[in-house]
Amino acid sequence: MDKKEYIVRQLARTKHKKYEQYVVTRIINLLNDLDIKFVTQQYVSRPEGRALTDLFFPQLAIHVEVDEPHHKSYVHADRIREADIVNATNHEIKRIDVDKSIQEINSDIDTLIQDIKVKVHRLKEAGDFVEWDIDAEFKSETYIEKGYVDIADDVKFRQIKDACNCFGYSYKGFQKGWVIHPNEENTAIWFPRLNPIVEEAPKDGDWDNRISQNEETITTSHLTDCAKNEKILNDIKSHTGDSPKRVVFVRVKGNLGMVLYRFRGLYALSIDESLSRGVETWVRIANRVKTYSNS
Amino acid sequence: MDKKEYIVRQLARTKHKKYEQYVVTRIINLLNDLDIKFVTQQYVSRPEGRALTDLFFPQLAIHVEVDEPHHKSYVHADRIREADIVNATNHEIKRIDVDKSIQEINSDIDTLIQDIKVKVHRLKEAGDFVEWDIDAEFKSETYIEKGYVDIADDVKFRQIKDACNCFGYSYKGFQKGWVIHPNEENTAIWFPRLNPIVEEAPKDGDWDNRISQNEETITTSHLTDCAKNEKILNDIKSHTGDSPKRVVFVRVKGNLGMVLYRFRGLYALSIDESLSRGVETWVRIANRVKTYSNS
Repeated sequence: MDKKEYIVRQLARTKHKKYEQYVVTRIINLLNDLDIKFVTQQYVSRPEGRALTDLFFPQLAIHVEVDEPHHKSYVHADRIREADIVNATNHEIKRIDVDKSIQEINSDIDTLIQDIKVKVHRLKEAGDFVEWDIDAEFKSETYIEKGYVDIADDVKFRQIKDACNCFGYSYKGFQKGWVIHPNEENTAIWFPRLNPIVEEAPKDGDWDNRISQNEETITTSHLTDCAKNEKILNDIKSHTGDSPKRVVFVRVKGNLGMVLYRFRGLYALSIDESLSRGVETWVRIANRVKTYSNS
Repeated sequence: MDKKEYIVRQLARTKHKKYEQYVVTRIINLLNDLDIKFVTQQYVSRPEGRALTDLFFPQLAIHVEVDEPHHKSYVHADRIREADIVNATNHEIKRIDVDKSIQEINSDIDTLIQDIKVKVHRLKEAGDFVEWDIDAEFKSETYIEKGYVDIADDVKFRQIKDACNCFGYSYKGFQKGWVIHPNEENTAIWFPRLNPIVEEAPKDGDWDNRISQNEETITTSHLTDCAKNEKILNDIKSHTGDSPKRVVFVRVKGNLGMVLYRFRGLYALSIDESLSRGVETWVRIANRVKTYSNS
């Protein structure tokens, strides 16, 4: 997908609220900068819970919400199940109130665009602005060169192999749900598929992986095999030495319908949490993880 | 409806073709002029036939078409049945080719906007530009003051009474399909509803009014009463003196769903055409008609 296709498809999604299309397309058209990436209708996770923002600029950590009277952006559990959720802690939220006159709305959008340009300028001066490169953003090389993956950098891959290849592999293809980290001891790279809906019947006799709203905790248990879950807990109880660690990329559906593997951080097995909850529990210990070249 | 509502609703209609929304909203946002009216997906009548244009600027007589490969804007007979059709003879047609790169598309849109601004400037210098006034455009007073209605001026009314009041009446309400012109001899003001679909069964036992694609001819006959049609033709055959005339406003559905009465010109009964076609036939004799104050 090139930028043209991406932009057109992202903007075509702005139809949920009456004034959303007007505000979102106007911001993008007047901002008029192909180096700035944007996402429409982005699910976000904030300390206060999950939400949906109308427009998100990943490089700038800025969200725009179109405030319509009598309209609430409900987040349906079934729609969020596989959604690509961005951690928006410390992100900036801008609001456009469309109850105002068209002249005032246009003027507020002008002010917002000015604010965005100032932020871009500051980031550029600080050397912290990376131009939107729609090809590079999904490539392992980009992050190997950078030296790390960080949840603040909106890291996601199209394929599992590309995530693996950030840590020393040189896979052409890879399909399993996890792999040993080739350069870090006692560490795996994990690609869990999340199933946060409790009401649903188990599918495929598979694993029930759940991430907490603040993303700090992931629990995992077998959906149907109780004996297996019991054995896992017994193993955890008798575990000695350092806790095992996992670099986590969760499988999500991007808002244009593509499967993506979004980096969520480094998690460690918590023996205390696992035993007190009665389920294998991983807690996040780092937002940033070192990358390795395969040579 | 205010301009905010109008603009938002017009732009929300741009979803028929993949790149249409992008191009149309970008033009409107970058043109950024609330004095310029626009209509999306406007049916037009041209010498070569009927068509649909993606964006129309009535004050400037400019249309924009978004050229997508492998896409043809079919005009369905059933959709055009009650459609508000603008006479686009001598209008300017601009095209945006979306097969190009996003940079080229954006640059072509910039050029187009520059062309539009030049045209606005020229019209203003010539005293021929009337700022878009969403309230005034549907008022009789606007046209009484102007001294005439002209098909080039995109004249349409929300209610029959407003059309009547352009010619000397001061109705508060009026519902009939025609009325005598109070200030012109041998002339009526006519509000035909058009039924150009031949395949459809007659409804309401009413009149079958049809306008030719070039709008130059209107035929009218009773849908079910053959005796009545015969009598009409006999009356026409024996007619002496000047041909009766009709100021015509056809009943249409505007693209936001509202009923409108669009001015189509001054028509005269053609005895020759009626007899050769075997149906009462009116031919246009003027595009502009004088208006009268009611005092």
